[in-house]
Amino acid sequence: ALRACVAELHEADLGDLIGALAPDDRVRLVELTGRDFDFSALNEVDEAVREEILEELPPETVAEGVRELESDDAVELLETLDEDEQEEILEKLPLQERVALERSLLYPENSAGRRMQTEFIAVPQDFTVGQAIDYMRETPDLPDRFYEIYVVDKDQHWQGAVSLDVLLRARRPVPLTELTDEDRRRVSVLEDQEEVARMFGKYNLVAAPVLDTQDRLVGVITVDDVVDVIEEEADEDLKALGGVTSDEELSDTVFTIARARFNWLLVNLATAFLASSVLGLFEGQLEKMVALAVLAPIVASQGGNAATQTMTVAVRALATRELGSSNAWRVVMREGLVGLVNGLAFAVITGIAAVAWFKIPGLGIVIGLAIICNLVAGALGGILIPMALERVRADPAVASGTFVTTVTDVVGFFSFLGIATLWFGLK
Amino acid sequence: ALRACVAELHEADLGDLIGALAPDDRVRLVELTGRDFDFSALNEVDEAVREEILEELPPETVAEGVRELESDDAVELLETLDEDEQEEILEKLPLQERVALERSLLYPENSAGRRMQTEFIAVPQDFTVGQAIDYMRETPDLPDRFYEIYVVDKDQHWQGAVSLDVLLRARRPVPLTELTDEDRRRVSVLEDQEEVARMFGKYNLVAAPVLDTQDRLVGVITVDDVVDVIEEEADEDLKALGGVTSDEELSDTVFTIARARFNWLLVNLATAFLASSVLGLFEGQLEKMVALAVLAPIVASQGGNAATQTMTVAVRALATRELGSSNAWRVVMREGLVGLVNGLAFAVITGIAAVAWFKIPGLGIVIGLAIICNLVAGALGGILIPMALERVRADPAVASGTFVTTVTDVVGFFSFLGIATLWFGLK
Ligand SMILES: [Mg+2]
Ligand SMILES: [Mg+2]
Ligand SMILES: [Mg+2]
Ligand SMILES: [Mg+2]
Ligand SMILES: [Mg+2]
Ligand SMILES: [Mg+2]
Ligand SMILES: [Mg+2]
Ligand SMILES: [Mg+2]
Ligand SMILES: [Mg+2]
Ligand SMILES: [Mg+2]
Ligand SMILES: [Mg+2]
Ligand SMILES: [Mg+2]
Ligand SMILES: [Mg+2]
Repeated sequence: ALRACVAELHEADLGDLIGALAPDDRVRLVELTGRDFDFSALNEVDEAVREEILEELPPETVAEGVRELESDDAVELLETLDEDEQEEILEKLPLQERVALERSLLYPENSAGRRMQTEFIAVPQDFTVGQAIDYMRETPDLPDRFYEIYVVDKDQHWQGAVSLDVLLRARRPVPLTELTDEDRRRVSVLEDQEEVARMFGKYNLVAAPVLDTQDRLVGVITVDDVVDVIEEEADEDLKALGGVTSDEELSDTVFTIARARFNWLLVNLATAFLASSVLGLFEGQLEKMVALAVLAPIVASQGGNAATQTMTVAVRALATRELGSSNAWRVVMREGLVGLVNGLAFAVITGIAAVAWFKIPGLGIVIGLAIICNLVAGALGGILIPMALERVRADPAVASGTFVTTVTDVVGFFSFLGIATLWFGLK
Repeated sequence: ALRACVAELHEADLGDLIGALAPDDRVRLVELTGRDFDFSALNEVDEAVREEILEELPPETVAEGVRELESDDAVELLETLDEDEQEEILEKLPLQERVALERSLLYPENSAGRRMQTEFIAVPQDFTVGQAIDYMRETPDLPDRFYEIYVVDKDQHWQGAVSLDVLLRARRPVPLTELTDEDRRRVSVLEDQEEVARMFGKYNLVAAPVLDTQDRLVGVITVDDVVDVIEEEADEDLKALGGVTSDEELSDTVFTIARARFNWLLVNLATAFLASSVLGLFEGQLEKMVALAVLAPIVASQGGNAATQTMTVAVRALATRELGSSNAWRVVMREGLVGLVNGLAFAVITGIAAVAWFKIPGLGIVIGLAIICNLVAGALGGILIPMALERVRADPAVASGTFVTTVTDVVGFFSFLGIATLWFGLK
């Protein structure tokens, strides 16, 4: 009864079920359901859970499960394991399947070669619609799902794509060449998955042929896997901006998480000390006018928030390629002006509030000038730092935050206390 | 020559071209290319640009362009305009098309009804594979692209889906009922697009039938539009966390942007004053021991960063539905413990650094205790605030940041100066 019920579940729901079970029960479930267990469900659970299950199961069982999968799902599963564990499973597979999987695993991580499935339909150039349809009716081992077929020459060079809906509209005697789209977007094996995802989004694709360096058709990437990539990359950027590594998962233990977040906090602690050392330069002034100590965090915080706004827009625009060298100068100018406009607005507001609070004439002008300095500095830092990181091929989402808020803390404290020193003739 | 060249461009590339032109040239391009202009390219440009072009063009031209589009693209285009401008264009369309578009525009924004296209293929239950194929060969006005066909009863009630690849594998005499998948995921017209996108991602769909409240088939949502939704929603969350509204676009003017960001900065200014007022409570102590003024921002900042990490994870997990009532308690406990572990680690580091800097014995213990308090408070705030916002149906991505850093600023300042007052017997 369990077997029948599990066999009927969609792999995604089966994945949810596994995630909800206690660790011991997960392996039990796989063993109990035996051949009815769809191993693609393991790609739907957190990586830590997947690894644990795969390591507990006998390699024979895993090898058998892997055989049932499309090659891209098999690769995704094997990626979880160390090389020697991979080896143990691969050597239990028939030669042909083993070679195919080993070749996929040789492509760099996050490349199209890793994401593609090697099951696809390729037909010769001289086929008619009727022959193509008969081929699909007669071949028993077609891919699980497909949305287009490809035309290749005798050396397997890609010639074009025919979507299934186009095929179905045409009559049997029509030669395929008449229906073939030679301009269809294609992907090279070494292309980064992020670039592939951008292409799918821009050109509204459901599948794309993957070609090797000699333009031979070696695989196909389908949109469902691209959707996973898009979600993964969005996840990565969002978490990076928040100072969390993207492999952190909800099922991780307290210590794994604490350690992973520690590094980021340590970097931030160093920059916080740097900013405070600026305050330290002005100890004498702070003692003489304690209002400065109370108000300094406001200047820093206002600049930090404005800079974070700019940085967020910049990081996102760099990720979607909306921001590039063609409009960089215009966007930098614009952000600088936005900083100036809001700097002026908040200079007035903060200045009035500060004078009302501490009744020190002149304090309003001092804090106002500092706010203007810091919002302009923050805007320029918020746009230039991500652009510089992108230029040196670092991920702008990961490192920008620390640099940017360091700039606004330092500029904020220094400009506020420096201007105060001059204005009030302190020290 | 221009017409031929523009007609050959992919709509996405045509959109890029329009975006790169000067505002005056954009309208000129549309007018010059006349009927060869594919209006779906306008859905690929920024909303502000789209609105400008549509408003400049004569309504007749727009109406003609809209007629050529699939209904979902037509709706997307019309959404840009005010109701009376929409009306002006709609009344130039043939009755049937007008009624269909008006009905779509009645569905709530961001609902499946707004995103669906009303062009789809529905065949009766008693068709065979051969009849279905002949129907597609003979009907001239099929949707531009489709990936599956639907089986309906005589009252248009949805019975199931047949993927094209499944259809192509079967022989002509096979009855469609044998191939029909009745369990295929479907969508209700009123469903939120975010929910629809989650379903596509989870179940690896390329298309989903949209049913009205009586289970009648009224449209279909395709994966290319879902990809847009996923990117839009990711964009929204990422920008919201950075304090930017999601309609901000790279082509907006300085004042539009400055005004849009002003509100968020104003809220933050208010919270910064709130935090500083806590410092204000301890003016006497700050004057007596200026080291406290120098170090207080470090305590606040360290707590703020730890809380932002937790909040980022929480917001993302809520958006993907990984965090729900079933694991809420466990995740809250875990975050609290992560806060405690890193609180202890940074208490030691910061304490040693503070004593080394100011040579005040006891200062290390005071700042260490404050760091522990603030990291635990930040962790709890970082997880509980987004969960509470989700509970009251506010968007956790939008408002969490302000609340969370207010908590860590206030707790940071208060615990540090409060503990210092007690320890050193100040005031
Ligand atoms: Mg399979
Ligand atoms: Mg990447
Ligand atoms: Mg698109
Ligand atoms: Mg796949
Ligand atoms: Mg997959
Ligand atoms: Mg990225
Ligand atoms: Mg701050
Ligand atoms: Mg069309
Ligand atoms: Mg939404
Ligand atoms: Mg998926
Ligand atoms: Mg569409
Ligand atoms: Mg679209
Ligand atoms: Mg959302």
